[in-house]
Formats: sequence, structure tokens, C-alpha cells
Amino acid sequence: MASFPLSAKEEIVERFLDAAVRGDLPQLRMLLTHTPSLINQTGYSGWTALMLAARNGHYNVVEALLSHGCDKLPVNSSLQTAYDIAKFWGHSHISNLLAQTDNSCSGVLPELYFSRETLDRQSDKRTDKAWLEAQQSDPNTVYLLFSNVNPMVSRCEEDKSSEVLDKLCRFRYDEVKDLIQKPKTKLIFLGVEKKKPSSSCSQVQEGSWEPPAWFAVGTDEDATELLKRCRENNCFFPESPNRNLLKFSEEEAGIVAHARSVLVWHDRYSFCSTCGSGTSLEEGGHKRRCLNSECRSLKGVHNTCYPRVDPVVIMLVVHPDRNQCLLGRKKSFPVGMFSCLAGFIEPGEAIEDAVRREVEEESGVKVGLVRYICSQPWPMPSNLMIGCLAIATSTNIKVDQNEIEEARWFTRQQIAESLHRGANPALMLPPSQTIAHQLIRYWICKNANL
Amino acid sequence: MASFPLSAKEEIVERFLDAAVRGDLPQLRMLLTHTPSLINQTGYSGWTALMLAARNGHYNVVEALLSHGCDKLPVNSSLQTAYDIAKFWGHSHISNLLAQTDNSCSGVLPELYFSRETLDRQSDKRTDKAWLEAQQSDPNTVYLLFSNVNPMVSRCEEDKSSEVLDKLCRFRYDEVKDLIQKPKTKLIFLGVEKKKPSSSCSQVQEGSWEPPAWFAVGTDEDATELLKRCRENNCFFPESPNRNLLKFSEEEAGIVAHARSVLVWHDRYSFCSTCGSGTSLEEGGHKRRCLNSECRSLKGVHNTCYPRVDPVVIMLVVHPDRNQCLLGRKKSFPVGMFSCLAGFIEPGEAIEDAVRREVEEESGVKVGLVRYICSQPWPMPSNLMIGCLAIATSTNIKVDQNEIEEARWFTRQQIAESLHRGANPALMLPPSQTIAHQLIRYWICKNANL
Repeated sequence: MASFPLSAKEEIVERFLDAAVRGDLPQLRMLLTHTPSLINQTGYSGWTALMLAARNGHYNVVEALLSHGCDKLPVNSSLQTAYDIAKFWGHSHISNLLAQTDNSCSGVLPELYFSRETLDRQSDKRTDKAWLEAQQSDPNTVYLLFSNVNPMVSRCEEDKSSEVLDKLCRFRYDEVKDLIQKPKTKLIFLGVEKKKPSSSCSQVQEGSWEPPAWFAVGTDEDATELLKRCRENNCFFPESPNRNLLKFSEEEAGIVAHARSVLVWHDRYSFCSTCGSGTSLEEGGHKRRCLNSECRSLKGVHNTCYPRVDPVVIMLVVHPDRNQCLLGRKKSFPVGMFSCLAGFIEPGEAIEDAVRREVEEESGVKVGLVRYICSQPWPMPSNLMIGCLAIATSTNIKVDQNEIEEARWFTRQQIAESLHRGANPALMLPPSQTIAHQLIRYWICKNANL
Repeated sequence: MASFPLSAKEEIVERFLDAAVRGDLPQLRMLLTHTPSLINQTGYSGWTALMLAARNGHYNVVEALLSHGCDKLPVNSSLQTAYDIAKFWGHSHISNLLAQTDNSCSGVLPELYFSRETLDRQSDKRTDKAWLEAQQSDPNTVYLLFSNVNPMVSRCEEDKSSEVLDKLCRFRYDEVKDLIQKPKTKLIFLGVEKKKPSSSCSQVQEGSWEPPAWFAVGTDEDATELLKRCRENNCFFPESPNRNLLKFSEEEAGIVAHARSVLVWHDRYSFCSTCGSGTSLEEGGHKRRCLNSECRSLKGVHNTCYPRVDPVVIMLVVHPDRNQCLLGRKKSFPVGMFSCLAGFIEPGEAIEDAVRREVEEESGVKVGLVRYICSQPWPMPSNLMIGCLAIATSTNIKVDQNEIEEARWFTRQQIAESLHRGANPALMLPPSQTIAHQLIRYWICKNANL
């Protein structure tokens, strides 16, 4: 079809989409096995393989794509989802299949950034000092270095996809043992690797293989000196976490979320909040214990010794007409960017009530029904983002200028165009790694407007 | 129908249920207006007004009962819900109505204890010192006294319902102004009353009425001396919060949840966790500020100054056959009591992953699908309970003895009988004020097994 030569990458995408059009399941499976990233690629007018299979009534292809975890949310240039297309062309067995899995959040939303549990936390091992010490000096153990709560990364320009990815720099025991012995260093046990080695690793005997342990090393040594330890190129410590920590693979983002949240807590909570004394690290870096033996925090039930996680509600407020949604912007946002409203849950407040209070405080809009959609850990510093859809019962906007600069109702068409066609000066949405972005996509997908 | 004389209370319940049987909407409405507590009363064999109206096909009565917030979860002695009854007798318009509102949590579950937002928090007023001071000395302002983070209450035996209720002791400015001026006292602004006075208050001019503000006063003065201040009888400070704080009305429980969570935070976080210095109260008791002007906590974004809320997952794990659920017991539980598994969310963890990790750690059971149901603030000390249903993908139980003593699969029948017929030696469920109880009832109701 193309009248100009295709690049290697374009050609493989073309072959993949063509297999979906023809219902050629073996070919499609073969291509996916070699290049898993094909799954959500788009061709002409933004059509994905799922849309093409849905258009042409290939039930088994749709089923296979879903089982490979393909994303059901994208819309084509006519703002149709795969579900809309199947329904329009009368393939009700396919539209039912696409609707069915919608009951679980995992079926609708892609896995959220920072959420992947790459390691098995093995929290019971945190109190096993002998085991932890043995792991520390094991040559297979992986260490990550953090300076001022940010991880050392190396930047790799991915030629094929033109995506810029950051990669955590990994160290072995010998390379960091001087650091971890310093009294000010914080050592956090993150867990052990989940995956068993493949059978092709013939040198490893069955049963004898122990999955490597991972540790985060938090230090305030001079960053330039720390960078010299690394054998990799293009190493650096991100300085602006809100932007720079969004460039990891899903696997590494999950590890960063865990490690950074705990390190930020150590950084801000090094003194006993009950009596003001110094504290020491325990339980693989997941506990701080007051050094004052008289302190009340050593008796009874309380939370002073454990890492803090702050629950936050973040919500897409839907207009009573169901065809508009409310977004707001802070002064600190880039020009044209709007996002979901959000705020910390207060003591003595349920999730749904926090949503209603925050929306009314920030925008003056009243909310009735609130529905939980998904959650995301957000390690800046240590939040748990609880994502909801909320149905407005009033529409007048009165902004609290201390909180946000502006709030506005946007039509479904405006949102879908911004999602599909990218940023325009009037409306830029937050990046896809954020739960705000995913809530907006979820709403667009769940109520496609043909 | 009764062959023995009815008490006044029994008689009014009888009239109410009879109106539901006959479909007499005016009578039913009149009785409800005078005695709102009739709404969920049961008569012969545990039948509620909703069940009786559903049995007899009175759509408008069912509608009216629902709009008054009646509970759809109860089962009669045959373990049937109102929905089951409507369906069995072929009143599909009624069973559809009962099923419809099931989409929103608020339609299925009663409002959870500790969740009622009786006061308008008016968080923007927390920074308005002049306004706060004016409210403090206002003669209409309501003060609640807390000693060692527990509220002063008076006990009233309710003759009519034989329920024992505790009531918060209320004080006026003149009665506590010496206390609130002491430097060690913590004064927390809780909000202002939501309800406008009814028009019958003829002395109050339109527009001039200001809703009274509420404050909590946290003090460590001698409890006996504090009790002497009260003009009411039977006053005391509860000593076992886990039991004693479950005896308030819904309105007061919500206020206690807010006040106690903030006071517990002050009690455990009076020193700056970043540098160990002393701190001072600000923003109506909702902020602590480090007194050391060099402290890093005074610059940048962090959470050290604000009250802590700990998110906890609590989950009913459902057997793959959907007809059994997993409950566990801690050593500290009363004999025969089992409850939902629960645990704190860790840094860098999404809600669904925390559910899977906790269930596997505590019971060895693996979980697939996780669905959020409802949330509850729990002020012992300051938790946010996030309630989920989780579908197991394995069934073998292997208990972590450090966490729980025993875990067991219970059949739907065992659970329904314990819910309906009360405690028996084999299985006692947690009290109705807990989210664990409500999750269990939700599961029983959603899948009634006729």
C-alpha cells in the first residue's frame, strides 16, 4: 500500500496489522513472540491490531490479543474504540467479549506506572538478620545507588522506537561494600527477584538456585564521586524527580517507587517524633527504632516506627450531562496543561467523602456518586493515589485560587482529540505514566460517543 | 396477630410492617416521619418492611423505603434478601429496582460507622486566626473534652430499644476557657454544624444565624478533676477504645473519628521528625511547625507537618467456588471470633497488590481479581480502612503464626447463620460497626443462594 520504502520497523508493524486484518493467528502469534511491543502499535488512521480484528470479525484474534494484555482504550482517528467498531459492524460476539472483561479494572486500564511488583518483597525476611547479612555479601546481590533520594541511572537512546529510556545502574557487593559500612548510609532490602532462570542456563543446577536479593543504598556522599564508581556511560542522578523519574521501564519504575518512598521517609523522619531522640534503622530499612529506652514509642501500638504512606484522592469529575469532564490547572503546570483535581485524605475521612470535599473546596462543584477505579503508588514523596470517577450534581465553577489557577469543563470531543492527536495549545493532558491520564482515558473509552 | 399484649414499641413496629404489607404509603410515611428508626426493624421471622413490600408487589413502597435509606442487606430466617423475595414471587419491576441501585456502594451498604461527616470541616478557615479566635469565645461554640486521646462521654440507657448509647459531653466556652489557655492543651477546630436551624426558631433572624463551630480539647489534666466539670450524669472516659468507641450515634462517631485521629497524631508526633526540635500547633490544630528556624522541614514539599493517615487493606477472600470465604483469627480475638484479613499498605504499593501480598503472607492463599467495595476511617490510631473483595486462585491454607492464629474457609451457610442468628461458639463475626462485618454482609447479600 505504501508508495515509499518502509523502514524495518514500519515493515514489521505493517505485517502484524495485516495478520490482524486477515485473521492469521499463527503469523500474529509468531510476530508477537519475537516483538512483544507490537501489541499496541497503530497503523493508518490510528487503527490497532485489535481494532482491525474487531472490524473483520476475527474472534480468535481478538481473544489472543486480549490474552497478551493488549490495551483496549485507544481510539482511532474517528474516536472509535475496538468495542465501538465491533458493535458498529454487528460482530456482537466480539463486542461482548470486549465489554465482558471491562468489569475488572485490570481489563480496562493498562498496568499503572510505578505499580509493577518486579521483586518479591519477602517482608518476613526483614527481621532475619543472619539471612540479610548473608545476602548482602552474596556476589549475585544487586545494589542500586541513591544520592539525595534519587537513583543513579544511565540513559540509553533507543534507536528503534526513538523513546528515551533511563536504566537503573546496578552494582555488586565489592563495588559498594565501603559505602554500606558507613554509619550514615541507609540500606534498604527491597526483596528478591521473582523470575526463575530459564532452563537454558545449564550451569545452574535445579534447586540450588537462589533468586538474587536487591538492596537500595541511600547516601549523601558527593554525587560526582559516586558517579565515578559506575562502569556504564551517560550516568547521572535525576534532579527533577517529577519529570525524570517517568522514564524507566515498567519493571524498574516499580522498584524505584518502593525504594524512593522508603528513602524519603528516612530522610524526613530520622528523629523520634514522640521524644525527639535519635533513631536507628531496623528490619532491612523498613523500621526506625527510638534510641531512648524510656520513650513511649517503644511500648504499645502506634505508627511512629514505620514508613509513612499518604493516601491521596484523585478524581475525574463528570458533568451531569455525562459528556463533559472537569479539569483544573495549577500555576506550576506547563502552559495549556489541565489535569484531574486531587488532594490528601484527612484524618477521619472515607475515600468518597474526601473526593466530595476536595472537589467542592477546589472548584465549588458538588459531587454525588463516587466510584473507585484504580490506584497508583507515587514516590514523590510517598503517596498512594486513589483514582475515582465522580458524578457532579452542580456545574457552576468557583475556583479556590490558593489551590488551583483555573478549572473548566471540557467536552468529550476536546479530550479525545487531545488524547489522540497529542498536545495542542488549548489543552495538554498529563503524561501517560500518571493516574490522571489513565482516568481520563478510562472515561473516554467507557463511554465512546459514536 | 399477637396473642399477648404488645409493648408500645412492638405496637408501632407492627403498624409499620402492616402498612408495608398492605402497600399503605401515607401511613408508612407518617410513621417514618415520627420514628425514623423504624426503617430497618424486623418482625416475624426477621422480615423487614422492605421484604414485605417486595413480597406483596408494592413498587411505590419499595421505592419510598429505598429513598429513606433503608438497608437492603438483611436476610430473613430463610436467608432471603428483599431482592430474592421479589425475584421469587415474580415482581421483576421490584427486583430490577433493588438490583439497579446495587451499582453504587452507597446503595448496597449502610453508611459505615465513623464515616458520617456531621460537620463541615471548613479547612480554609484553619489559617484564619482572627476568625478562629472569634469562634473560640462565641457562646454557641461547642467543645468536646479528650483526656489521653479519649473523649468524655455520658452513658444513656435507651429504654425503648434497650441499646446502650454513649453521648459526647458538650461544653461551652466559659466552662473550658481556663483549660484551653494552658500551653500543653491541644485545641482542634473540627468544623461548623451543617444543618440550618428550622424556621420554627423564630428568635433567630434570617441571614444572621451563624452555624456553631466545634472544637476538640486534648488535655492530660487529671481525669477525675476533668469529670467534675460536667453537669451530666454517668460521665467517664472510655479506657478500651476498640470496644468503647463503638457506642456512639452515627453523627457523633464521625466527629470522634476526626478528633481522635488528629489528637493521636499530636500525642505521637510532638517533636520534629527531621531535626528532633520541639514543634508548635498551627492551622486550628491541623499542622505542627518546627521551632528550629534552620530546619529543612520549613522548606520545600514534604509531609512532616501534617497529620498522618495510614492506609490499610482489609479484604474478604472468596473461594474459587464462590461459595466459601476465608476468615482468620488473631490470638487477641474473643473465643470463636473470625474476621477479614487485613494489613498496612507498604510504600510503593498499589491497593490491589497490597491485598494480594497480605493474603499470601498471612494465609498462603493466592489471590487474582481484587475489587474495591468501600472505605472506613478507623481512629485507632488513624487508619483508612480500604475494603475489598478478592477472588482466590488457590485454596491451601498455610498460616503465618506471627500474624494470625488460624485461618479457615467458611461456607456461605455458616456465615449467613452467624449473621442472622447471632454468635454461636463456632463462629462469631466482628460487630456491625466494622468494615469487616459490612464486607461479609455485602458478599452474603450480593450472591444470595436460594
